Amino acid sequence: MVTPQTPRVTRHFEEELEHLKRRLLVMAGAVEEQVRRVVQSLVDRDHDLAQQVLNGDDPINRLQIEIDERCFRLLALYQPVATDLRMVVSSVKINSELERVGDFAVNIAEATLRYLDQPAVKPLIDIPRMGDIAQKMLRDSLNAFVTQDVALAQEVLERDDALDRLKDQVFRELLSFMLANSRLTESALDLILTSRHLERVGDHATNIAEEAIFIVSGRDVRHHGLDGGATE
Amino acid sequence: MVTPQTPRVTRHFEEELEHLKRRLLVMAGAVEEQVRRVVQSLVDRDHDLAQQVLNGDDPINRLQIEIDERCFRLLALYQPVATDLRMVVSSVKINSELERVGDFAVNIAEATLRYLDQPAVKPLIDIPRMGDIAQKMLRDSLNAFVTQDVALAQEVLERDDALDRLKDQVFRELLSFMLANSRLTESALDLILTSRHLERVGDHATNIAEEAIFIVSGRDVRHHGLDGGATE
Repeated sequence: MVTPQTPRVTRHFEEELEHLKRRLLVMAGAVEEQVRRVVQSLVDRDHDLAQQVLNGDDPINRLQIEIDERCFRLLALYQPVATDLRMVVSSVKINSELERVGDFAVNIAEATLRYLDQPAVKPLIDIPRMGDIAQKMLRDSLNAFVTQDVALAQEVLERDDALDRLKDQVFRELLSFMLANSRLTESALDLILTSRHLERVGDHATNIAEEAIFIVSGRDVRHHGLDGGATE
Repeated sequence: MVTPQTPRVTRHFEEELEHLKRRLLVMAGAVEEQVRRVVQSLVDRDHDLAQQVLNGDDPINRLQIEIDERCFRLLALYQPVATDLRMVVSSVKINSELERVGDFAVNIAEATLRYLDQPAVKPLIDIPRMGDIAQKMLRDSLNAFVTQDVALAQEVLERDDALDRLKDQVFRELLSFMLANSRLTESALDLILTSRHLERVGDHATNIAEEAIFIVSGRDVRHHGLDGGATE
């Protein structure tokens, strides 16, 4: 039941797949920039920049719809099989992951705008560090997917632990601030929420890295420790 | 480039698609039960039940992998087009949404086990209410997808506001407890996190409902207020 593929059709598919990957990289770049900006706005106490992040979500949502449509067109027109099919379906999933990271940037911008109305709890050290790690995880996971680089994808998975540890550290530190001074409760809560959002950005990068590994090795690493599982 | 479909092939595809939908309903039922149990464990202060929720995540992860493979097989063997193609790709997405809801149940179970080590902050009223709404949203969004019921999907979207309002209410109330009594800070934080996880369960149900609407009407309702956007 495999559609006979003429060389010409194959070439068109390859070209469209390359175009799809480039659009995913554009989407990832836009989302990463949102994360960078929102952490910057929090550190610099910059209302305008936080507001720009809120306004920056619409273009990302438009990109998501465009990329989704591109995937459907590829599936419907070329009816790819095997690895090509997996590439396109993984692109649909990765597109959703990226759009959600965009939503977290918006959530952080909202927490930031609330936080900036209050006195600062403390100089921020771990949260910008989390932001840097999360951004790099995003970038590398996408590059791993596009260039089919399993080693890079594996590195992304390992960095997730660092993010988790920082999140726990932020939590403990802010809890002690809250216990010592209840006037800081609301501000500290917004920082705790921000660190959790950044941790979730890392989770989405992890999901993308897992798709990259799946594509190349046909090995499902999503649920470590599950016996059986699905491979090709 | 459309593969000629014999009646026999079409019948097999229809049967497999029906089977896929049934498996998605099983997955949704399992996830909904996890949400039900975890809220119950929090309300009843039941350690064992919270522990059962932690143990209940593996079967859900296995189901996710099985359903994913089923979708790939359908795409590769039958190369569906138009609405059939959208049904299968939407199933891939919905499968991811459900798996994530399962992860939230685990997050709540972890918060619950911490919470149960401390004295109760207050009798819980709004959180079980949030749990009920989130469960119903999940069930109805899946039914809307499987039976292609746009009106039901629309109802799910509307219920999301109720969940958001309850989450804000929980937050304000617990904040005032924390401000009044700093010994309650840690426990109150776990309840705040729980209410946020439940709100996110509702968000995932909303995503599923949006897929249901998209399938039937070809109308993309994911990003309200975006001009243009993608329709068929």
